[in-house]
Amino acid sequence: MPYYVTIDIGGTHLRAALFASNATRPQKHQRVRTHAADGLSVFERLAQQVEAVWPSGGDVAAIAVASPGPLDPMTGVIFATPNIPEWVDFPLAESLSRRFGVPVFVENDANLAGLGEWKYGAGRGHHNVLYLTVSTGVGGGVIIEDRLLQGAHGLAAEVGHIVVAPDGPLCSCGKAGHLEAFAAGPGIVRYVRERLEAGAESALRLDANLSARDVAQAAQSGDPLGVEAMARAGEYLGIGVANFLHIFDPSIVIFGGGVSQSGECLFGPMQRSLRERVFRRNYLENLTITMAELGDDAGLMGALAWASIKHPV
Amino acid sequence: MPYYVTIDIGGTHLRAALFASNATRPQKHQRVRTHAADGLSVFERLAQQVEAVWPSGGDVAAIAVASPGPLDPMTGVIFATPNIPEWVDFPLAESLSRRFGVPVFVENDANLAGLGEWKYGAGRGHHNVLYLTVSTGVGGGVIIEDRLLQGAHGLAAEVGHIVVAPDGPLCSCGKAGHLEAFAAGPGIVRYVRERLEAGAESALRLDANLSARDVAQAAQSGDPLGVEAMARAGEYLGIGVANFLHIFDPSIVIFGGGVSQSGECLFGPMQRSLRERVFRRNYLENLTITMAELGDDAGLMGALAWASIKHPV
Repeated sequence: MPYYVTIDIGGTHLRAALFASNATRPQKHQRVRTHAADGLSVFERLAQQVEAVWPSGGDVAAIAVASPGPLDPMTGVIFATPNIPEWVDFPLAESLSRRFGVPVFVENDANLAGLGEWKYGAGRGHHNVLYLTVSTGVGGGVIIEDRLLQGAHGLAAEVGHIVVAPDGPLCSCGKAGHLEAFAAGPGIVRYVRERLEAGAESALRLDANLSARDVAQAAQSGDPLGVEAMARAGEYLGIGVANFLHIFDPSIVIFGGGVSQSGECLFGPMQRSLRERVFRRNYLENLTITMAELGDDAGLMGALAWASIKHPV
Repeated sequence: MPYYVTIDIGGTHLRAALFASNATRPQKHQRVRTHAADGLSVFERLAQQVEAVWPSGGDVAAIAVASPGPLDPMTGVIFATPNIPEWVDFPLAESLSRRFGVPVFVENDANLAGLGEWKYGAGRGHHNVLYLTVSTGVGGGVIIEDRLLQGAHGLAAEVGHIVVAPDGPLCSCGKAGHLEAFAAGPGIVRYVRERLEAGAESALRLDANLSARDVAQAAQSGDPLGVEAMARAGEYLGIGVANFLHIFDPSIVIFGGGVSQSGECLFGPMQRSLRERVFRRNYLENLTITMAELGDDAGLMGALAWASIKHPV
């Protein structure tokens, strides 16, 4: 029985898992902090996790990796990723392949989370899936007729980086008015800061640690500024989702990521905005809007789906 | 040798053509005005064109139709189309199939123009194609890994109907701030009218027949308001194209439609806006931006491509 090894590279943890190629529960599973004072490089720390899950018989068909980008999925090179500064133009696929002697497939973590939700999670049975993760950024994974949307350079589905207001606030990428600048955590916090500095009434404080979770909790308690800030994020998220319905026409929209845990204070305004912005009712017929099911396992499970697509056994 | 019959339904003309299934030049070709004082229904006038190209041996494998939407490509029902008011929830595929006894495939005209350009026109050899038609509206056809993007309801690729400015002018569809409201002909004309009413200097006049072509010609002659209006359309078009690169990551963008004939007064500002808005240079590497090649034949040729995909012989 051949195996797949899957890897999820997060800003906080590196994870590796061993799956029998016909199974969806891992036989082994390892997790370690991405950064540690152990004198090892991130790559060496990662490779040791892979060794720890490697099967004794050694019959691994392929390794698949969910990695933060930007990256080139064709070559498996990580261009640069904010949480791992030592990886600049780092040949991750080649380095793993040389060390372990098997084919390695690297893809963007949001793409693979979407693929995982399609194959194993909330999107099972759907052929056209839009997965949106809303956390420190807005990312996406898009399945079109049962295939992952990758694009000519492997850079498709960067759904957080569409302009929703040409003169809007700057995004983390440096460009103006992107969906991410309105709907992701840092954009929500920035808006609250600006309103507090302008004298808005709120239980929220101008604290260096102010987080989108604080804002959502304040909104849930009825704090006017919290409600306003989450409603603003929801309104722009609804504009973004309407755009994506017009573009992709999926049968399901799946929300993942920490900000998506905010509940009605975000999704009430999102749904109102979406209904107002959709230009034909047909897009909403038989459309499911739901939460991701795989949670922290989305990367590992998406990588499993990717391994079985790229290297079937 | 089996044949395909292809049909292009335009606001001005109905066209029908007969192709040997292995050929790309029609053996017969008919064209008639969509509306005429001949007492016939549009469907009857269309059916007579099909009869006129029908081969004597009768060996037709399928009919494919490029139609303006909105429509349901799964059922071949035309919901409503501005230029043919007598067609409301009209079962075009079923009506043609009953009359001619062969399978009939109906798709959105912009989708099929994109498919035609991919298979027979400017997009030959590309696997990921974005076709944009800019005329009285903004439409699109998207090819992803050699397949037409359709969506769960067949309503994908409505690329003119993305919000680029939440409080922007109303689109023909009634929603605010869509790309179409800025970049299509009526949006350009509306902007010029508003500026003329506000006293802007221009050789252009507040004339009921003022057209986007007039505005483009004025721009080409250096008229300041013409230049300004076309530059504004180009700027928003560049925002739209940047969004679509981030979403689809194509290797070619193909422009069709009358407004796309405007030249540098539109495409200079479009290119500047695009370069400013793209959030990673990689999207522009090996990216071709070019004009459509099939012209008035895009619908018939796209329908031919669609017939051979949906009903290979």
